Amino acid sequence: MKIAVTGKGGVGKTTVAAGLARLFAQEGRPVITIDADPDANLAAALGIDPEAAARIVPIAKMSELIAERTGSKPGTTGGIYKLNPRVDDLPDELSVKAHGVKHLVLGTVEKGGSGCICPESTMLKALMKHVIVRRDEVVIMDMEAGIEHLGRGTSASVDAMLVVVEPGQRSVQTARQIQKLAADLGVTRVFLVLNKVRDAAEEGELRAHLPDLPVIGTVLERESIRKADLAGRSPFDVEPAFVAEIAAIKERLAAEVGVAADASGK
Amino acid sequence: MKIAVTGKGGVGKTTVAAGLARLFAQEGRPVITIDADPDANLAAALGIDPEAAARIVPIAKMSELIAERTGSKPGTTGGIYKLNPRVDDLPDELSVKAHGVKHLVLGTVEKGGSGCICPESTMLKALMKHVIVRRDEVVIMDMEAGIEHLGRGTSASVDAMLVVVEPGQRSVQTARQIQKLAADLGVTRVFLVLNKVRDAAEEGELRAHLPDLPVIGTVLERESIRKADLAGRSPFDVEPAFVAEIAAIKERLAAEVGVAADASGK
Repeated sequence: MKIAVTGKGGVGKTTVAAGLARLFAQEGRPVITIDADPDANLAAALGIDPEAAARIVPIAKMSELIAERTGSKPGTTGGIYKLNPRVDDLPDELSVKAHGVKHLVLGTVEKGGSGCICPESTMLKALMKHVIVRRDEVVIMDMEAGIEHLGRGTSASVDAMLVVVEPGQRSVQTARQIQKLAADLGVTRVFLVLNKVRDAAEEGELRAHLPDLPVIGTVLERESIRKADLAGRSPFDVEPAFVAEIAAIKERLAAEVGVAADASGK
Repeated sequence: MKIAVTGKGGVGKTTVAAGLARLFAQEGRPVITIDADPDANLAAALGIDPEAAARIVPIAKMSELIAERTGSKPGTTGGIYKLNPRVDDLPDELSVKAHGVKHLVLGTVEKGGSGCICPESTMLKALMKHVIVRRDEVVIMDMEAGIEHLGRGTSASVDAMLVVVEPGQRSVQTARQIQKLAADLGVTRVFLVLNKVRDAAEEGELRAHLPDLPVIGTVLERESIRKADLAGRSPFDVEPAFVAEIAAIKERLAAEVGVAADASGK
């Protein structure tokens, strides 16, 4: 199962992506997370220590490896690809494993004025397209804030897209744009995650603003999560109620996408 | 004075940019705002009604006009440019004026899979570079969330860059990257805006995390601002304390950049 987590900046994409990854890994599934945001912070949310995170080689620098596994250079079109390149054995030096999750990063902007990250995005798009996952495997991409990645189509090959929204007009507007652009890409399973919701009234209002998008789960606003963030800790490690909410999203997601119900499915 | 407002997604860039624009305009200065985020929502924060906002022609579609004013096509290098193309008389059909602010937008992603927004960013960069503002004029760009725009160098010609941060590790990390990348671009005036701060302890902690960046102002977290956002209203119109905080930032910014102290300076 390949999932992309999208939404306006600051709505909680990274928190949701990290929570899902940790829970799928706890079931014993092979989980790969990809931080597709050049302003990367998924590693911290996963509980990976900064020194280990600094050792991750960005996907943007994996050109040779991708060519070797797929039989084709990323960025080229046509040609014959290997249909099922392995990803769960990616060399350890290219990822960091923590809490059962193998974590990769797209790559950041290394120098001001150095250009856009289009070549890197093309590489990631190719990797996502060529990766055939086993039925019990999970790949979760944490996307860049906003909508530019949908122009690039980085997530065109995902099985499902989560759109995280919070109470307020702005993330709702972004969600509407994402819904339209995802349809252009042919992504048909698009689900809302309602985050930072205070009460049933706010939840109802959010649903009313986006009637065409099915809601896959709701995550309440909690002081404990704010404090965990301030302290640089994963909410996953401090707030059982948050974990329960993410677990509910995980179950519905697995049912919608048709992933094997347990880690033994091949 | 040309200003870029930057920061991680969700920290409040758009709110700060809109507040500054409204206050500079209240002084009688010509103010131009540019929403440089393809996931645009500055118009709403400025209090521009959605129908008027929908009529704005994106900068990305202004190629002919930029060539006419500057004597050179955006995206080309070399050649002789007109040194002071006018911007305050931009045709009304290319902008929407509200509360004394002329508002322009970069342009959005119109179709999923249509590519990146590099050409549009190149156009905006050229426009910003060629615009010579009078001493009393103010141009405020609300940048895309994160750091990719710094790779593109869209804001390379600004007089000052504001980096908005909120309590928490993530926006602090982003601010550190912005500081480094802005230096690569040669932007020397980089100031922090501490947003959504609850108390002196949180403010002190934020300052301690970013000791090398001068703080130009602090904006407190307020329930009234959250409610205004939920209702789709500008905090500028509902919260006098917020307006006072932004006014303090405006004064310091004008002093730092050396803008004429009142609207009569030419």
